Amino acid sequence: MKEIKDNVTAPRGFKSAGVHCGIKPSRKDFVLIVSESVCSAAGIFTLNKVKAAPVLFDIGQLKEGKAQVIAANSGNANSCTGKQGERNAEKTAELVSKKLGIEERYVLVCSTGVIGKQMQMEKIEQGIETAAEKLSIGGTDAAEAIMTTDLRRKEIAFEFELEGRKARIGAVAKGAGMIDPSMATMLCFITTDVDITSDALKLALLENAGKSFNSICVDGEMSTNDSVIALASGMAGNRKISGKGKEYEVFSSALGEVMLRMAKEIVLDGEGATKFITIDVRNSKSESDAKLVGAAIARSALFKTAMFGEDANWGRAISAAGASGADVDQEKIDLYFNGTKMCENGMGTGKSADLSGKEIFIEIDLKLGKGNAIYYACDLSYDYVRINAEYET
Amino acid sequence: MKEIKDNVTAPRGFKSAGVHCGIKPSRKDFVLIVSESVCSAAGIFTLNKVKAAPVLFDIGQLKEGKAQVIAANSGNANSCTGKQGERNAEKTAELVSKKLGIEERYVLVCSTGVIGKQMQMEKIEQGIETAAEKLSIGGTDAAEAIMTTDLRRKEIAFEFELEGRKARIGAVAKGAGMIDPSMATMLCFITTDVDITSDALKLALLENAGKSFNSICVDGEMSTNDSVIALASGMAGNRKISGKGKEYEVFSSALGEVMLRMAKEIVLDGEGATKFITIDVRNSKSESDAKLVGAAIARSALFKTAMFGEDANWGRAISAAGASGADVDQEKIDLYFNGTKMCENGMGTGKSADLSGKEIFIEIDLKLGKGNAIYYACDLSYDYVRINAEYET
Repeated sequence: MKEIKDNVTAPRGFKSAGVHCGIKPSRKDFVLIVSESVCSAAGIFTLNKVKAAPVLFDIGQLKEGKAQVIAANSGNANSCTGKQGERNAEKTAELVSKKLGIEERYVLVCSTGVIGKQMQMEKIEQGIETAAEKLSIGGTDAAEAIMTTDLRRKEIAFEFELEGRKARIGAVAKGAGMIDPSMATMLCFITTDVDITSDALKLALLENAGKSFNSICVDGEMSTNDSVIALASGMAGNRKISGKGKEYEVFSSALGEVMLRMAKEIVLDGEGATKFITIDVRNSKSESDAKLVGAAIARSALFKTAMFGEDANWGRAISAAGASGADVDQEKIDLYFNGTKMCENGMGTGKSADLSGKEIFIEIDLKLGKGNAIYYACDLSYDYVRINAEYET
Repeated sequence: MKEIKDNVTAPRGFKSAGVHCGIKPSRKDFVLIVSESVCSAAGIFTLNKVKAAPVLFDIGQLKEGKAQVIAANSGNANSCTGKQGERNAEKTAELVSKKLGIEERYVLVCSTGVIGKQMQMEKIEQGIETAAEKLSIGGTDAAEAIMTTDLRRKEIAFEFELEGRKARIGAVAKGAGMIDPSMATMLCFITTDVDITSDALKLALLENAGKSFNSICVDGEMSTNDSVIALASGMAGNRKISGKGKEYEVFSSALGEVMLRMAKEIVLDGEGATKFITIDVRNSKSESDAKLVGAAIARSALFKTAMFGEDANWGRAISAAGASGADVDQEKIDLYFNGTKMCENGMGTGKSADLSGKEIFIEIDLKLGKGNAIYYACDLSYDYVRINAEYET
């Protein structure tokens, strides 16, 4: 598997465009990702009980496992917008359908931005008109147009072999705040030219979500708009993958790498982040316990502010582990900061650790069983507060 | 019931002293609260699976429901200190016992401060010597000596009638960070001259914890040292309260007011707090659902930064409610900021609210049942980050 240039248009059969339609004052805010033909499609969505209108719309659209277009805007989440919001999501699909001559049932709609404001549909219509004219292969505008508080563009593409043929997979993502271990708050659009059924595609998404988007934390918030959507055009010409097996594993492994890379990019771009922290939880009683411990440390405001202050205050990590709900025997815990054993059998060693680098590695060994988990988190800085205190509603 | 001056020495039979013994560079850091006679005693402690040595020690000491002295230090939590930490907690009790001529089994020990460092016992010994000489009625030094990052002294005393006699209850507390809805992270020492069994005292503590210390949030952290301890000297001369009944209700009501006032003081003094936020959750499916919603909003970093920015970003509160795990019907939620309806049936009303005052009232009506809960939280400001990034380990 090798990394290649481009993002969602690297796989055969896809074009995209990102444009400015006026939802945001000046930055790009509308994107179309279009396949030549109807794709196998699958999505995973926020677990928040309050779901934005486009999330509810897409869940319905994806029941058949088919889609051909993703139309997404930033600047307005179309969330907490009632029946009018639902009608606006449908209307967006209808307008896209008419403009591109693609059946409405194959159009997916995504939104991200402020909660509680109605969409300005004349702007969306403008965005569709403009983007449809600019559809092309290559370019970074699709990745740009879904950014909100993101500072970095998040895009990737890989090429790999499947039955001796070249296959590709590409993605764009957004997300910087409202990122929680249980389904990170973001949008991620993945395309591939692999021929695969929508059921197998969904399975691969779910199998890879745990170690990628479900293992990262910026601030422990879960949004109303989280969506990961994958479209598979089938143009790689492989025998259609319909379930587990050698080819499925090859594809799933590539998909997993795409998802993990996008997840890590989101943490690197965490609002106000100055540190990228890897939390390696080992030997907990069960895997679910390891996840509880990893998520609790990743979410801990006290731990995250200590990391920002480059202070090896390991007690805060231990305290978060103890409060996580997981089984913990305080007389067994070992904890390492960047390889230095700070705590042995629950007792401080008196050692100090240098946390001045951009990356910090935390290892916590619970010595209770065989459960392992790895989480990725950023620190909590003044800038997180500034960004979110100043964010305009 | 009327508020009176003084704190833990307002009830008859108690003396206290707070002194500087050198754990902290210059501020007071050691306190003794001593009763003339053996008291009925009860405590509630952190639910963190990692418990500091003095917490484990006190849980053992309180099995008999009797105590006469609380010896507490700030500056060092004696947590994650292994067997040595346990021996140091015992040693503290032994030294107090010797100095005051009180049986060791009646001595409780509490610590708060940095995790993972061994106590310097020569300083504790010095603290005991000095404090024992300064025991007196009245004064604020007991409240001062348990402060860590606290900016405000937390103390209160009430006088009330019980069977026509005057009874009193007083308290000191500390807590500013590591404050979570599930047992706020703090120390609170309560004294009373009411005659009551330790079982009835424990029941009253537990009954009042839900709406006080378990309903406040600064940062969603749970410490290894949380302890609420009550001592009842019995010197008010009432018939001993041994269970539910009219006198129990009078006492419990006074205790509840003490605990609520101390809990609110902790929120007011939340690290970096600029706002005191009341979150009134109404008509959820059950009371436990109301608590989930209240705690989720109280903990939400995005909501708290919006409050700091005086931005009526109600979508963040709705999103937190939806992610709380409670049953939520997004088409039914009403939400008010300072009395202004921001959201009706899950849809923005377009109204704005003035959040420039020190107090902010949030009401969320879920319209699903009869569950209610009130939570108290502060905002998340630059100063929370500063305080916790700069806190020395």
